[in-house]
Amino acid sequence: MNKCYNNSNNCLIDKAKEEKIDLVWDRYEKMKPVCGFGEQGICCRICMKGPCRIDPFGNGPQEGICGANADTIVARNLIRMIASGTAAHSLHGKEIAKIILHIAKKETKNYEIKDVEKLKYVAHKLNIGIDGKSINDIAKEVAYKSLEDYSRLEENPCNWLASNLTTARLNKLKSLGVAVNNIESSVTDIMARTHMGTDADPINLLLAGLRCAFADFTGMELSTNLSDILFGTPEPVISEANLGVLKADAVNIAVHGHNPLLSEIIVNVADEMQQEAINAGIPGGINIVGVCCTGNEVLLRKGIPLASNYLSQELVILTGALEAMIVDVQCIMPSLSKIASCYHTKLYTTMPEAKISGAEHADLISNKAIENAKEIIRQAIRTFKMRDTNKVLIPHEKNKIIAGFSTESIVNLLSKLDSEKPLKPIIDNIVNGNIRGVVLFAGCNNVKVTQDYNFVEMAKILLKNNILLLATGCGAGAFAKNSLMNSEATIKYAGDNLKAVLTLLGNEAGLNAPLPPVLHMGSCVDNSRGVDLAVALANELEIDLNQLPLVASAPELMSEKAISIGTWVAGVGIPIHIGLMPPVSGSTLVTNVLTSGLKDLVDGYFFVEETPLKAAHIIIDIIEEKRAALNITSNFRGNI
Amino acid sequence: MNKCYNNSNNCLIDKAKEEKIDLVWDRYEKMKPVCGFGEQGICCRICMKGPCRIDPFGNGPQEGICGANADTIVARNLIRMIASGTAAHSLHGKEIAKIILHIAKKETKNYEIKDVEKLKYVAHKLNIGIDGKSINDIAKEVAYKSLEDYSRLEENPCNWLASNLTTARLNKLKSLGVAVNNIESSVTDIMARTHMGTDADPINLLLAGLRCAFADFTGMELSTNLSDILFGTPEPVISEANLGVLKADAVNIAVHGHNPLLSEIIVNVADEMQQEAINAGIPGGINIVGVCCTGNEVLLRKGIPLASNYLSQELVILTGALEAMIVDVQCIMPSLSKIASCYHTKLYTTMPEAKISGAEHADLISNKAIENAKEIIRQAIRTFKMRDTNKVLIPHEKNKIIAGFSTESIVNLLSKLDSEKPLKPIIDNIVNGNIRGVVLFAGCNNVKVTQDYNFVEMAKILLKNNILLLATGCGAGAFAKNSLMNSEATIKYAGDNLKAVLTLLGNEAGLNAPLPPVLHMGSCVDNSRGVDLAVALANELEIDLNQLPLVASAPELMSEKAISIGTWVAGVGIPIHIGLMPPVSGSTLVTNVLTSGLKDLVDGYFFVEETPLKAAHIIIDIIEEKRAALNITSNFRGNI
Repeated sequence: MNKCYNNSNNCLIDKAKEEKIDLVWDRYEKMKPVCGFGEQGICCRICMKGPCRIDPFGNGPQEGICGANADTIVARNLIRMIASGTAAHSLHGKEIAKIILHIAKKETKNYEIKDVEKLKYVAHKLNIGIDGKSINDIAKEVAYKSLEDYSRLEENPCNWLASNLTTARLNKLKSLGVAVNNIESSVTDIMARTHMGTDADPINLLLAGLRCAFADFTGMELSTNLSDILFGTPEPVISEANLGVLKADAVNIAVHGHNPLLSEIIVNVADEMQQEAINAGIPGGINIVGVCCTGNEVLLRKGIPLASNYLSQELVILTGALEAMIVDVQCIMPSLSKIASCYHTKLYTTMPEAKISGAEHADLISNKAIENAKEIIRQAIRTFKMRDTNKVLIPHEKNKIIAGFSTESIVNLLSKLDSEKPLKPIIDNIVNGNIRGVVLFAGCNNVKVTQDYNFVEMAKILLKNNILLLATGCGAGAFAKNSLMNSEATIKYAGDNLKAVLTLLGNEAGLNAPLPPVLHMGSCVDNSRGVDLAVALANELEIDLNQLPLVASAPELMSEKAISIGTWVAGVGIPIHIGLMPPVSGSTLVTNVLTSGLKDLVDGYFFVEETPLKAAHIIIDIIEEKRAALNITSNFRGNI
Repeated sequence: MNKCYNNSNNCLIDKAKEEKIDLVWDRYEKMKPVCGFGEQGICCRICMKGPCRIDPFGNGPQEGICGANADTIVARNLIRMIASGTAAHSLHGKEIAKIILHIAKKETKNYEIKDVEKLKYVAHKLNIGIDGKSINDIAKEVAYKSLEDYSRLEENPCNWLASNLTTARLNKLKSLGVAVNNIESSVTDIMARTHMGTDADPINLLLAGLRCAFADFTGMELSTNLSDILFGTPEPVISEANLGVLKADAVNIAVHGHNPLLSEIIVNVADEMQQEAINAGIPGGINIVGVCCTGNEVLLRKGIPLASNYLSQELVILTGALEAMIVDVQCIMPSLSKIASCYHTKLYTTMPEAKISGAEHADLISNKAIENAKEIIRQAIRTFKMRDTNKVLIPHEKNKIIAGFSTESIVNLLSKLDSEKPLKPIIDNIVNGNIRGVVLFAGCNNVKVTQDYNFVEMAKILLKNNILLLATGCGAGAFAKNSLMNSEATIKYAGDNLKAVLTLLGNEAGLNAPLPPVLHMGSCVDNSRGVDLAVALANELEIDLNQLPLVASAPELMSEKAISIGTWVAGVGIPIHIGLMPPVSGSTLVTNVLTSGLKDLVDGYFFVEETPLKAAHIIIDIIEEKRAALNITSNFRGNI
């Protein structure tokens, strides 16, 4: 199996081998065979009588020491994953809501409200009257309404849940008891009910997981939209992606993680300090590059080039040309610390909840943030001189990308075709089959798959079949790195009908070329943008989300966040493809609930397919079924 | 290894063998060898790249696929255990706080404020003025101040944390950043920071765990004290314990779990329905018995006999004489469902967050609670006729116990000796060495130890050495079942000096016999009572908690709650013995922090000793050290 789909990266893997540095792929090989009990979800470490494990072949124990069977054990483990994913996204959102409150109360000078229109729009959605109120007053109310979703004692649904779904969907969730009222209570509920000897009914456990997944949805909607208020709503922006964005003649600084609060500061401060670097004799100045979803955040809002998505994050240091890597939270390999120590690269952690042994900690969210950011950059300028040019290897490849497709920017674009009814052009093109359907690609990379392979191979088939693609997170990173987010990709891969639509839109957008065939919507927390667009379309068509010819796919999923996102995606009615089996195969009951039982409850469901070709064709079939149910069967079946 | 220390229970284990019913001990034998990776905490299932496991012998992988080493993996797993323990206790407390709010708002008729004095005392501690306010108004404010600890956005410490520690201790916690501000936020924080690629610094992780453990403390203080307001503060009560409390001629109904909300209703309704059972030709009427901590709750407040603690819960059904088992939350073996199906016993779950496949679910916390409770008991009366007398085997043994030693009831007792300074007699006796020290026994049973053995063997040595014992939870159950909670036990086991003190107190209490040498303080959530007493003593002596000759012990710990409790016990400065190694031995760093690093930070620490004899002697040494530090060396060293 190849390690990276993108060949240009492989020279760094060879370099690591020569330098005897273990990378994620090496550690995976050394870990084999991975534990089959854990992989199937039938290992239980919830109390100290065990650990217990169920024999999947039926010869050994079929119950843990307490009597919990495989169904209970698998369901408990799964919903603890959902709890962690939810907690991760929601803490991110809470920090942003608090910053908005600080701004409104004039307690911080590090940030300001950048998108007042979005603030007003969000206020409107949250039923906050704005007439005669100052920006700060509106911001304060938005912050409080957001923080209410972390502290509500009453049973009514979270504000950010209720305001971002179709009415039919919200009612369905209410009737199932999963329209969650409080994000942190639902995480706590999961941890309480999975305590030894509490919930032992797998269906009851899974329903609690579904409820918690809607807390994840709430936290994500809140994170995305408040980030837009704070840092601006993304507009189409041209940039580049892949390791070739590193510059031999510049101070290279990577920002990595998920939280835009600190990367925003780094980018701004670096802008101001360009001259300092040049004065220090560094012709290229300071070159900020992004990794993972912090990379996506600054790409969409600042046009900062994206160096890497998840799995190849170590390679950014392996280039030998990185002076500093500044990380915040989530998906940061602890290995970075050891690898940085083999080079001149300095690794900085920045958030109190995410330190790494061997990294330097610089507080970038307190009032000292700007001062500390300056010091980090100044240190990077000094560190540049310690770069060992003999150890530098920057792969040449970088690809042009057009990113920044927020829901608002898509609607803006469409409104150039029909300013009265901006969604009409896209609906018309879906109805006439020029766009047969839409697939939202999301989720991580996983070392068990050649990096980015599933994404790219699936995309090629879907595009040929005139299916428009949206992408977030490391999925978006995969497409960005592999040249699927530019006009040339539309020409190369899109079916004729899709190509025609994208060309029309690209011309309207002033590109004089087609829009890219995969629209970069943001970081993984921005999957909420996909839902916002879907809700707008569903409302316009007076249907529910499950009726849209829309499918989601996380073909290389890896993190607990992917599990929580996938669960609410199914919960809003969207079928979701996953390219790897999550740790549930030890329970037929849980597996059946996820792949079919859920469909009866919430219309959406999971399906697992490892082969990209097969997965793409299953998705096409689902889209055709949805089209048929809407009586909009297309004429373009034959060009696979 | 014997299964139960109490021989009278073993006949039921033989019976299970004859009837081919697997019990917890059988399932443990079948699970052997348990997974050594899990047992050492070096198995990681936090993302889907793995699972990963560290080779404890250093030959195989020393890092997970992401690069996390054993220290990070062990610390993450450990603090997720703390998060679950905290969540479990705190949800329990939140439900009680909400009921008090419902009472105050006249929204429920199922409950009422029973202890108005305690309500006023709690209001006082929480800085709520009570002058001129109605009981309902005070209750409302107490409920809101309590619920604030689940929803606070500001950084100030939880109300129930700040009001229940010495000032010195609170200041120490504040200076370490572990004086937690919000229970549910701290659980969510743990789940967020343990997400893949977030916190990878074991010390930072463990500090977050310590902070979360203080959320556990907060939830426990709140649970205990609000339960007292709702159901009455325990006073000494005489009852019986062990399986012999089941009656051949009565409808036997067991209440099992941890939440007093529903057992209170069952006990009250059963009282009213006695005549119905007698009218149905059942001479013994209805006999409610307790299991586990719900058992402790109704024992302390209602004198209901205790049939079993954790490990032998299945045996209650094995007697063949149980018509119904009604369970709420935590420590309920899922196996009960299968075992009940071998008998006429009906198993009922009652809380929405804890269902069991095969059990009937009866909602006992809504407004239908009383109606549903009546129906369960009526059904149990009908079920009595289905009892197969050939399958009945009730062990003869039951022991007299004196329980109900809340902090208040202990102070009341002492005030009979000195009404001005009620704590003076106990302090005087500690100073003069009649009571050399105090040990609080807490925690679970664990199938890896002969049930109750560690508790009883340690107690015998400590008592002989004039050390007074307090007990909660399944530890209290162990002493109750094994006849260590009555006057005879004092005569039999206590050293002469301790015996003299307990005899004096027993006479003052009107027992005409000594107080028991082990004072039953309540369920496991009531470990807070031990702290309340310690805080009162420390304040009286103008010292901090760590200076008291006080040690805690969980010699048979098993659940995640035991980990969270143990952590805050150490955090308040009390050394804590544990009789089994928790899953941390895979990291020398984490093990060292728990057993010594913590001492530098917070004075308290863990020590692991499997042998009761050795453990008792280490405890005696610690007590002597503490006495020496206070300059109150005793003269009674020689009678071990």
